[in-house]
Amino acid sequence: MFDPGTVLCHLESHFQSHLSELIDFASIASVSTDPAFKAEMVRASDWVAVRLARAGVPLVEILKTPGHPVVYAEWLSVPGAPTILIYGHYDVQPADPLEKWYSAPFEPEVRLVDHEERLYARGVSDDKGPMLIPILVAEAFAQTSGRPPVNLKFLLEGEEEVGSQHLEALVREQAARLGADFVLSADGAMWRAGVSSLNISSRGLASLEFRLTGPRKDLHSGRHGGGIQNPLSVMAKLVSSLHDAQGRVSVEGFYDRVTELSSAEKHAIAAIPFNDTAYLESIGADATFGEPGYSTLERQWTRPTLELNGMWGGYSGPGGKTVIPSEANAKISCRVVPDQQPDEILALVITHLETHCPPGVRLEISPDYHGAFPYAISSDHLGLEVARRVLLEVDGREPIEARMGGTLPIADTFKRLLNLEMVFFSFSTGDEDFHAPNEFFRLTRFKKGLEAWARYWLILGVQNA
Amino acid sequence: MFDPGTVLCHLESHFQSHLSELIDFASIASVSTDPAFKAEMVRASDWVAVRLARAGVPLVEILKTPGHPVVYAEWLSVPGAPTILIYGHYDVQPADPLEKWYSAPFEPEVRLVDHEERLYARGVSDDKGPMLIPILVAEAFAQTSGRPPVNLKFLLEGEEEVGSQHLEALVREQAARLGADFVLSADGAMWRAGVSSLNISSRGLASLEFRLTGPRKDLHSGRHGGGIQNPLSVMAKLVSSLHDAQGRVSVEGFYDRVTELSSAEKHAIAAIPFNDTAYLESIGADATFGEPGYSTLERQWTRPTLELNGMWGGYSGPGGKTVIPSEANAKISCRVVPDQQPDEILALVITHLETHCPPGVRLEISPDYHGAFPYAISSDHLGLEVARRVLLEVDGREPIEARMGGTLPIADTFKRLLNLEMVFFSFSTGDEDFHAPNEFFRLTRFKKGLEAWARYWLILGVQNA
Repeated sequence: MFDPGTVLCHLESHFQSHLSELIDFASIASVSTDPAFKAEMVRASDWVAVRLARAGVPLVEILKTPGHPVVYAEWLSVPGAPTILIYGHYDVQPADPLEKWYSAPFEPEVRLVDHEERLYARGVSDDKGPMLIPILVAEAFAQTSGRPPVNLKFLLEGEEEVGSQHLEALVREQAARLGADFVLSADGAMWRAGVSSLNISSRGLASLEFRLTGPRKDLHSGRHGGGIQNPLSVMAKLVSSLHDAQGRVSVEGFYDRVTELSSAEKHAIAAIPFNDTAYLESIGADATFGEPGYSTLERQWTRPTLELNGMWGGYSGPGGKTVIPSEANAKISCRVVPDQQPDEILALVITHLETHCPPGVRLEISPDYHGAFPYAISSDHLGLEVARRVLLEVDGREPIEARMGGTLPIADTFKRLLNLEMVFFSFSTGDEDFHAPNEFFRLTRFKKGLEAWARYWLILGVQNA
Repeated sequence: MFDPGTVLCHLESHFQSHLSELIDFASIASVSTDPAFKAEMVRASDWVAVRLARAGVPLVEILKTPGHPVVYAEWLSVPGAPTILIYGHYDVQPADPLEKWYSAPFEPEVRLVDHEERLYARGVSDDKGPMLIPILVAEAFAQTSGRPPVNLKFLLEGEEEVGSQHLEALVREQAARLGADFVLSADGAMWRAGVSSLNISSRGLASLEFRLTGPRKDLHSGRHGGGIQNPLSVMAKLVSSLHDAQGRVSVEGFYDRVTELSSAEKHAIAAIPFNDTAYLESIGADATFGEPGYSTLERQWTRPTLELNGMWGGYSGPGGKTVIPSEANAKISCRVVPDQQPDEILALVITHLETHCPPGVRLEISPDYHGAFPYAISSDHLGLEVARRVLLEVDGREPIEARMGGTLPIADTFKRLLNLEMVFFSFSTGDEDFHAPNEFFRLTRFKKGLEAWARYWLILGVQNA
């Protein structure tokens, strides 16, 4: 009944219109973290729901949450065939600093850069491009065969960039109809351009913000300088105390639950083609830095971190302003690894900050209790086996096993609540500047992604027919 | 010829119109540090020149500089009488953070606060209110006696808040006609509300800004965290290294040229009514802090400092953004005391930053070479003697001898280039939140200032007649 040639030919011949649709989708400024963009979030969820329905998916629902809605859809048309739960997200990171974008973040533009065609816009790589792929592939099957070769459920959320705050409650509530063989995720970029990879683990996240307040208002640094604590100096000392000079996190108990790599795992990572010099060139930095005793890849993939994401206080405009500011602020996030618990890590960092804060300033900490657990999948899982076959067909070589330094907050949610493993099958790549200015998605990867998802469903359908 | 009663009565009866004029003057947003306010700077200098001419001052000129203009005026009508060179400035500090103002910074508003009438607006205390006084007093003499009792020169600049960058060149150029017995400064707030004081020294200023750059763009903290230096963490460590835990500046050589107080000077400062608890209450801070071995007043008046005026980098908007930022920035200013040299202190701080900056980030330092020297005047100077008599008459008690933690960049310029001492005779007070939101000027001090400047000229004129 399913002729691979027909569906692949359909995808090939519709590529230009698929690209136009991605451009349309990426024009919506669906920034989930900033309340100013609430109307755009509604537009984006509506866009996704309408697109699923137009693709021919028979059941499409917009599920409300206390935050941004989830778009849910079902196409259960192949009795006895496997069911996959497709995950993705339609929300995007904030676009600032705006002045660093070469084209406006929500006016997508195709440009030829480094000899490849790229679509530039906030969210195209994370995750609008990858997320659109299974919708378009479902449509291609609908139009060529009347139905897809496997049973599909779609769960496309709008809060991935803010820690999937309301997804857990929704998954609990909808658990009865979310049953599947596994989750196939359209999110979770491949590690490197030009090297196919399968993610077998991701780090979790724990974050907080703190504010130090000294005098009740900004003071003249001449009149008052020398008399009191400057909140900026205290912030610097407090932030400094979080790492030792070598970059190891100094927070007591931080590493207590970290599972050390086996020697086999260390060898597998060492065998992956990775070169510090080339890496540094790619990001424009001068030197690697971090916890001693681990390679760069080991540190980024398997070790926990504590990073400053923002610090601010006092005057930052042109010229000088001689003040002792009233306040200093910092945002911190930790990437956590098995078997660290995000809330326990938060508590340790909070204790550290409280213990190290000197008198003369007031410390207020705002922890984000919607952290994410780390995740790992066994490398012989069926979903990975199918992915390996598909990537071999599409790219002409077997993918490598990579780990993810970043966080997919829901991987653990699906495992805990539904006992489903998650297979990452995104066609974006880690160098595409998601979370930074000038995010882009490679057009060749968009095209390969469409082909790969079609083949994946075909193989999975045949295998279990 | 001069009847004190007549001129004082004139000032008394014109107070409401003088207040209206100050409100008009303070409505001009003459922020010298920010190029966006250039037109307002021109408006302000024009306003001052026109007002001097209207007061009856026979010669008024607007002297161009490569930056903001200086308003110069002369009224030399009393052969044989002393000549005073009056100094003040019409530029103001930036008004931000705007959201902390109760009324708009450039829409002056009289409010009754703590049982006293205050005029709220950026620059009313520093220095528009005090600077307007001698102009109004000159007019009062013109209208009651046809001329003032002493010879007057006015030099009112527009770059005090940016380190008087072009004043030195202008004073050199105009040296031939700036001759006087001494400088009487309308700038340099009195130390405390309710206690008359005369400043006998001020601290100088040396400042710089630095930027640390890591990766060429903001990076995803998940993918890259653990791999490279985070510019924010480096900034924190670098800033921390500038002070020891007790608040003493750790920059090598920083204290080498500092003149220690004599035991008589220490006793004089200890005799001044000052109470740490009351001080902390007034500024809303929890504890004093700073160089061990010195009292709070000694630290603020006679010891050099290094303060952070601003730090920024990464994401500071609502919610979280998991980036390793490309850049981190800080603004630093040092208050210097005799016999420190601002440029030498800058060089020491630069060396410290360069020496302590780790590999993996690039450090760019932008020093401000228009620093200010510290200043001190002998306490038996004629100008101070007259001031003591006036303050005794006006306030009913002798003023105390205070020192100034802040900087008057030109005190040293007049001394070096013209060999003129500077007497500070401002009627603003150090608690009036200049350099902070909600700057105000007490109406009673505006009134007393008008009376005091009239009496000052009368006494000085009689004394030398």
